[in-house]
Formats: sequence, structure tokens, C-alpha cells
Amino acid sequence: MMRTIWISRCLLLLLLSMAVTSSALAQTTDTLPSWNEGAAKQSILNFVAAVTHERSPDFVPAPQRVATFDNDGTLWPERPIYVQLAFALDRVKALAPQHPEWRDRQPFKAALDGDMKTLARAGEHGMLELVMASHAGMTTDEFARIVKDWLATARHPKFNRPYTELVYQPMIELLAYLRANGFKTFIVSGGGVEFMRPWSEQVYGVPPEQVVGSSIKTKFQMRGGIPVLFRLPEINFIDDKAGKPVGINEYIGRRPIAAFGNSDGDLEMLQWTTKASGRRFGLIVHHTDAEREYAYDRRSSFGRLDKALDAAAVNSWTVVNMKTDWKRIFKFQ
Amino acid sequence: MMRTIWISRCLLLLLLSMAVTSSALAQTTDTLPSWNEGAAKQSILNFVAAVTHERSPDFVPAPQRVATFDNDGTLWPERPIYVQLAFALDRVKALAPQHPEWRDRQPFKAALDGDMKTLARAGEHGMLELVMASHAGMTTDEFARIVKDWLATARHPKFNRPYTELVYQPMIELLAYLRANGFKTFIVSGGGVEFMRPWSEQVYGVPPEQVVGSSIKTKFQMRGGIPVLFRLPEINFIDDKAGKPVGINEYIGRRPIAAFGNSDGDLEMLQWTTKASGRRFGLIVHHTDAEREYAYDRRSSFGRLDKALDAAAVNSWTVVNMKTDWKRIFKFQ
Repeated sequence: MMRTIWISRCLLLLLLSMAVTSSALAQTTDTLPSWNEGAAKQSILNFVAAVTHERSPDFVPAPQRVATFDNDGTLWPERPIYVQLAFALDRVKALAPQHPEWRDRQPFKAALDGDMKTLARAGEHGMLELVMASHAGMTTDEFARIVKDWLATARHPKFNRPYTELVYQPMIELLAYLRANGFKTFIVSGGGVEFMRPWSEQVYGVPPEQVVGSSIKTKFQMRGGIPVLFRLPEINFIDDKAGKPVGINEYIGRRPIAAFGNSDGDLEMLQWTTKASGRRFGLIVHHTDAEREYAYDRRSSFGRLDKALDAAAVNSWTVVNMKTDWKRIFKFQ
Repeated sequence: MMRTIWISRCLLLLLLSMAVTSSALAQTTDTLPSWNEGAAKQSILNFVAAVTHERSPDFVPAPQRVATFDNDGTLWPERPIYVQLAFALDRVKALAPQHPEWRDRQPFKAALDGDMKTLARAGEHGMLELVMASHAGMTTDEFARIVKDWLATARHPKFNRPYTELVYQPMIELLAYLRANGFKTFIVSGGGVEFMRPWSEQVYGVPPEQVVGSSIKTKFQMRGGIPVLFRLPEINFIDDKAGKPVGINEYIGRRPIAAFGNSDGDLEMLQWTTKASGRRFGLIVHHTDAEREYAYDRRSSFGRLDKALDAAAVNSWTVVNMKTDWKRIFKFQ
């Protein structure tokens, strides 16, 4: 009897160890299933093999395997408008009853009327006004709640689905594949850091402390013995273009060995990442699929890809053709 | 024969699993060996048990186990002067030949003469001038090299040892103990972030991306096709006092459940960490050992501990008496 128990216990242990082995094998087989075979996928696999195999001349120790990802247009759509702008417009509508003066004041009037032409003409300054009016004036905890509540109900106008279902499945697989190979994955986005952090862990597997983004200033206050951080209508940091390497250095403090973007806003991040000693990897997502998503590049006002596309050719960065390189774009497709 | 192999293979697996269990036991036995038994040590053990045992009413999932540590006076000495100030003074001396005007200009003259009285009178503005002159005007890579080179040769005036050997052994054990229990440990210091990052991983086991600190601005530049970040003589962020919760929110994006400090500069971090729902932990290192280190608190100009000491009593934060709670302060003792 004793012996039977002993052996069945052994059997259990062996089965467990076999299960671990076969799941590791399965993982290898299923690497990046939403990517079509081709040069783009192969360049990723080659790079990861080169920096992770201990005998490779390009081996990089795990703690230095830092990979940075842009968000808008790289991990989820930025068309017809940035998701965060859709959020700001909805917030302005929700707050309008407390601001009767907005009915006659631009860019608020345009926001309330859904007049995108006038909004576009309001330019960066106008956008900033909308962001300040909709993103400041509450505590950080309150803002996180507002973001979560909005994401739970808001729908993308083309796909009629929650934005969090519109993350690019091939990129989700890529994030997980890099992490499985000892990489630490960071988001480095021009978007607001406190707009992304409430959901980045659940949706991307990227915890809040690995999200770098633009921010407004906050102020520490004691309110009846309770500490709060109050969001002020003042820009703190813009994490875009030349701001991306600055933000990477300030918030991460390590130089990435791989960077992933989709627009000219990512050019300096890609340069900072790849133009250094040792094996490096740069990748640009090129929006070429008007049917399954959107097609735009050099002449787009949102997510323009012009200089960075030229730089990709010069620097041998991988350019992903969404139409041909991705089997599917979204999980539901 | 087949059966013998089978059983010996099982035996091996069982032995392996037993080895894992006994090493876990050994770890428990050796927890915090440089801490004397007492209320301070017990409060740490109780807190960690409460938030890590899955059936505990105070259980906190691992990703939310964020612990933040001040650096100067909490992890290493801040007397007779801040280590970074010693660095700045040495840098000013090294740069003096290129700046003949410093011989007649304060606070540089005082720095060059080692006239600490005049330096102290120069106050915060004077210190800032010294920091700007010694910390800006080079690339981030160059600065990291300067810091490493200085730490390799500089010695503490009282202990005549490299500063990196003067980290508090009980706190090193505490950092490791928390990490072994699923905590992510961060440094949140008033000191310069780029002064700490080049050595934080090796000395504290805290990687650069988990170091938050004060910073000056940097600028991205292409120099002959090579991207660099150039350090500008302009304050970017001061991570002290009410700046600590702001920095924690901006750089980590998660509220800590445990915070460790030693001075009034840590008061707001301790409030932000402990005055929230769920089990929380605050700890203050009280410098009470003039013989083995230094003794100072309410009337000190470096690392004054006054308001935070009063707040510790009100908020039931643990106050570590360095003289009686720590078996040894440094590893070499």
C-alpha cells in the first residue's frame, strides 16, 4: 500500500514536470500565431534569438532587455481620432451643464456640436484647452475612476466595440513573446500617462509602473486628514518626438534595445534605441489596411508616418505591412 | 531494472522538491539577521505575513506590493554631508582649472577652500549653483561614467571606506526580504536620480527603472548621426517633501503599501502610503547611534527628523532605534 502511494506520488510529480516541458514546447510552436510568415515576423524571431541565446555574440542579460512600445497606432487604433480625444470630447459634453459659457466659446462649442472641422482648426492649443478642462480639477483617484467608467461604455465609431477590445492582437502576442523571453516591456506614449495606467495591466500585461506618457502637474494636499493628489490644469511633460528619449531616460533610466512605433512621433525613440552599440531592433507598424482597420501614412494629420518611414529604410528598421503581415488585426476577426 | 530506474528518478524528483522546501525554511530562519529581536523587527514580520498569506484578511496581490525607500539617511549615511554634495564639491575642484573665475566667486570659492561654514550660509540657492555647475553640461552617458569613477575612489571622512560599502546592512536585508515576499522595491529620494541609477542595482538590488529622484532637464540631440541626451543646468523635478507623493504617482503610478524614511522630507510619502484603506506600513529610521554612525534628529540641518517623528507616534509608524534595533549598521562591523 505504502509503495503504491509512493509510486503514484512519483507519477504525479513526473506528470507535472512533463506538463511543464510540453507547455514550453507548445509556446515555441505557437509563437506569434497572428503574424503571417515573412520578413517582418522573421526579423523579430531572429533578434530575440540573437539577444537571448547565451552563446550568441549578441547576448544581452535579461535585466537589460528593455523594449518600449508607442501606444496610439502601435497597440490600438488612432483613427478616426485619438481615443483620448474621444474621451475628452465626451467629458466636455458631460461637464457642459456646469459650464454654460462653453456654448459660445471655442473650442468647446465645436466639441459640443461635434464640429470636427472647427475642432481641427483649433489646433494644438485648442486640444490643450479641451484636455485641461476635461483632465484636471479632480484627484488622481477620481480621474482613474472616470477613465475606467468611460472605457466600460464608450464604443469605437467604426467597429462599434469597446476600445479595449481594439488592441492589435499581433502586438499583444509580441508583448507576451518578448516578456516570455526575459524582456521588460514598457509603453512610451504621447498619450496621457494617467489615461493609460488604469487599464494597461489588464489589457497589455504592462503594469502602471512601466507606462511612460505625457502628464499634467499634480499637487499633494491634505483634505480633512486624508492625503490626495489634485490634478492641475498645467502641462508637466509631453512624451512625444524628442520628448520620448527624454522620457525614457527620466522614467526608465535604461536605454531600450528594442522599440516599436508607427509614426514620426516615434522617430527619436527609434533613433535613441537603435543607434547605439550592441544588437538593437526597431519596428514601425505601417497602417496599410483600409478594410480591416485604416490606411494612412505621409499625409495624415493623426499619426503621420513620413520621416520615420524614410529613416526605417536607412536604418534597416522592420516595417510591418498590416495588410500582409498580420493574419488578423483584432482578436474578434 | 526499468522499475529501479523509475523509482530512482522519482526519488531524485522528491529530493529536489524537498530541497526547495528546506531552502524556503532556511530563508525563514535567517530573516533579517542584522536586526535585534524587538518591536521594530516584529512589526515588519507581522506586516509582511498579513499582506502575503493568502487567507489573511489583509492579503494584497503581489503586483500591488509596492514598497518605497528614501535613500539618504535611510539606506546610507547623510552625515557629515550628503554623499551627492561631497560629489559636487569634488567635481567643482576637478573642474576649477577650467573656471578661474570660481576663485573669487561664492559659493565656488568656499567649495574650493573647503569652507563649510560659508557654504552652509549660501543655503539652497548656493547648493543649486554647485549642483548645476557640476551635474550639467555633459551627456547622460558621460555623467554616469563620472559618477561611477568618483564612487570607485571617494572615501567617507569618518569611516574611510567607499560610500557603497556604507549602506545599512539591516536595510539591505529588509529590501531583499520584501522582494523575496513578492514586493517590488523602489527608491524615492530627494537625491539626483542619475546620481543613484548607475549603482543602485549592484548595491541595493534596485534596478534603475525603480529609482525615483530629483532631476535636471535633458535635451535630445543628434551629434554627427549619433543621438545623445545632453544635461541642462535647469531643475526638472524636486523629489522631496510634498514632491515625493507627486513623484511616486508620476513615476510609479501605483500607491505604495509600505514606505521607509528617516526625516521630515519623507513625511508626505509616509502619509500618502499609510493613510489609505487596507493594511499599510510606515517606518522611520531614527539616527541614535553616535558611536557606530551618527545621532541627530529634531535640530539637525541635514535630515531633520521633527514633524515626522511626531507623526510616527500619531500614526503608529514603526520607529527604528538604530542603536538598539540593529545588531550592526554596516556589513564590515
